[in-house]
Amino acid sequence: MVRYFFRQGKGEIKVSTDQSKNEALSPVTIIGLGEMGQALANVFLQNGYPTTVWNRTAAKAEALVKQGAVLAATPREAIQASPVVILCVLDYDAVHEILDPLGDALKGRVLFNLTNGTPKQARDTAQWAKDRGYDYIDAGIMAVPQIIGTEDAFILYSGGNKNSFDSNKELLDVMGASTYLGEDAGLASLLDLAMNGAMYGMLAGAMHAISVVATEGIKAQAFSSELLIPYLTAITGIIPNLARQFDTKEFTVGVSAKLAMQQVGFRNIRQASKDQGISTELLDPIQSLMDRRVAAGFPDDDFSAVTELFKQAKHQNT
Amino acid sequence: MVRYFFRQGKGEIKVSTDQSKNEALSPVTIIGLGEMGQALANVFLQNGYPTTVWNRTAAKAEALVKQGAVLAATPREAIQASPVVILCVLDYDAVHEILDPLGDALKGRVLFNLTNGTPKQARDTAQWAKDRGYDYIDAGIMAVPQIIGTEDAFILYSGGNKNSFDSNKELLDVMGASTYLGEDAGLASLLDLAMNGAMYGMLAGAMHAISVVATEGIKAQAFSSELLIPYLTAITGIIPNLARQFDTKEFTVGVSAKLAMQQVGFRNIRQASKDQGISTELLDPIQSLMDRRVAAGFPDDDFSAVTELFKQAKHQNT
Ligand SMILES: NC(=O)c1ccc[n+]([C@@H]2O[C@H](COP(=O)([O-])OP(=O)(O)OC[C@H]3O[C@@H](n4cnc5c(N)ncnc54)[C@H](OP(=O)(O)O)[C@@H]3O)[C@@H](O)[C@H]2O)c1
Ligand SMILES: NC(=O)c1ccc[n+]([C@@H]2O[C@H](COP(=O)([O-])OP(=O)(O)OC[C@H]3O[C@@H](n4cnc5c(N)ncnc54)[C@H](OP(=O)(O)O)[C@@H]3O)[C@@H](O)[C@H]2O)c1
Repeated sequence: MVRYFFRQGKGEIKVSTDQSKNEALSPVTIIGLGEMGQALANVFLQNGYPTTVWNRTAAKAEALVKQGAVLAATPREAIQASPVVILCVLDYDAVHEILDPLGDALKGRVLFNLTNGTPKQARDTAQWAKDRGYDYIDAGIMAVPQIIGTEDAFILYSGGNKNSFDSNKELLDVMGASTYLGEDAGLASLLDLAMNGAMYGMLAGAMHAISVVATEGIKAQAFSSELLIPYLTAITGIIPNLARQFDTKEFTVGVSAKLAMQQVGFRNIRQASKDQGISTELLDPIQSLMDRRVAAGFPDDDFSAVTELFKQAKHQNT
Repeated sequence: MVRYFFRQGKGEIKVSTDQSKNEALSPVTIIGLGEMGQALANVFLQNGYPTTVWNRTAAKAEALVKQGAVLAATPREAIQASPVVILCVLDYDAVHEILDPLGDALKGRVLFNLTNGTPKQARDTAQWAKDRGYDYIDAGIMAVPQIIGTEDAFILYSGGNKNSFDSNKELLDVMGASTYLGEDAGLASLLDLAMNGAMYGMLAGAMHAISVVATEGIKAQAFSSELLIPYLTAITGIIPNLARQFDTKEFTVGVSAKLAMQQVGFRNIRQASKDQGISTELLDPIQSLMDRRVAAGFPDDDFSAVTELFKQAKHQNT
């Protein structure tokens, strides 16, 4: 597996101050100016890149045009303005609505698709691009718009031609720390979606926690900055042990808490939530996993063993 | 709200080396020698405290006795050995099974109950203790046994008499960083359970993520240490903004991602999980929350707005 790092930066957007260098900067096109696309275009402008933009709703380009962006009238015109095209729209339906009518406009350019989608969508679109002789790389953005352009913004790339990534790495690094994962176009998406699933587990848990303590008049801001965030940060420290148990399938080795104990403690978490008038809908499936694993005869397993229960569902539809 | 901190220590158990001081150390009794009780007794022994232990299954005291612990034959004998009694058993049923037959054995001693339970159980037991003239303080352990005795082990206390906490703080700090939250016995439990609910959200999300990437041969240990943990740590940085939106109920102010976009992205997370043959049972309630909030007419809210949907359930039973 590729080795890369998130670094904790100051949250400052890096801006190149070398003007002579700026003159050599490649033009770049951004298609899609939602919350994310605007942040992407913004950091290119701040770094002096000649920037062309297009959005279905043109009004969203106003602030960027004031900063020097060129607003193209059509996607085709936008694409023709730059050798590098960055696409960041809502979903793959929007991607194809924009790209499909374009004929061979993308030939000779490289398209980085930063739109969120599944590995299957990424692989299908990579094949679609290959069939047309397009240079296409898929990407997953591991960041919110507010930190785009900082070292904390992490962007994973995969698929297409590694050379196309390497030769544009400096430009891509303007948006965030860029990593190429391999030629399978689905890989960036897979890791992106897996990590964002975990993120939502954490954020949903945090939203539940602030709701519970608020019932006793405790403010969410104080609670989260003084207690919850430091606690969650400290608790990430037990993930490597759970990961080791998962990799080795030795769920009773190096146990910090047995499921038989955890299922009891977790019932308390849910009961207290109910007593405070806060729905337990987010927590109920976790209780179910613990209860099922214990009932299956594994009371002494650690929490990592619930992963054994995930493997039952196969290729369902949404 | 009380201000306190988690500090990232070296993970080393603090051991007092001042022998002259050890002679003055108060005797302490630990009742309950599960994973957690053993860790607690162990750090008292390492710090030179005269330590008496009792456990329903006496065999679990063996290693501790070798280190110098005195094994009491009954809970009553254990309690009589020390002015400070620490109780850490599975649940409140076990607490009452042990304490109820004891008559006035606890008079003149202070009982710290580190057993996990709901705020209601804590308040009821505090009242039970008060009726008998016992000195009783409830506690929540925010730590796994492995870090007991280090600065990362955080223990919240509430209820009873603050003086009883203050005069025993040095002893309590042997187990971890101790904080007294107030005279409401339910408070330590409430914050403990709320934070552990969030912890389980994060850990369950992490277990789901390692299961998804494992389907493509990626090892959980490398993935979690190189990517997932740094990502989750970085993402805690957006919790304060969500907490601010929650406190002010301004869910469209300072939005980093609109629910209408998030519900689409989240569908991709679930679809990819299904495509890889991994159950989405943990994720489904999160999708439901987003979908319901958008359907209720709030597509531009940030994720914090799902908390509005938690307030419907009232005092159900498990
Ligand atoms: N925001 C985040 O925190 C975040 C983080 C990581 C990844 N992402 C990903 O980044 C992408 C964009 O997110 P966002 O926050 O910018 O979303 P957004 O604010 O909702 O913007 C959606 C964008 O997609 C365009 N669009 C939607 N349907 C279209 C169609 N049929 N044809 C043409 N354009 C269409 C919209 O154009 P109009 O302006 O005309 O509606 C707009 O530019 C998504 O895939 C998202 O998952 C976002
Ligand atoms: N382990 C953790 O990571 C962790 C973290 C935070 C808080 N806690 C809390 O700490 C407490 C203990 O957890 P643990 O990990 O030590 O659990 P454990 O390893 O399952 O041990 C349970 C303990 O409770 C005793 N017990 C159970 N039923 C009893 C009864 N009816 N009468 C007398 N004793 C009884 C057991 O005695 P036997 O040995 O005779 O069975 C044992 O000493 C729980 O409330 C837990 O929620 C644990």
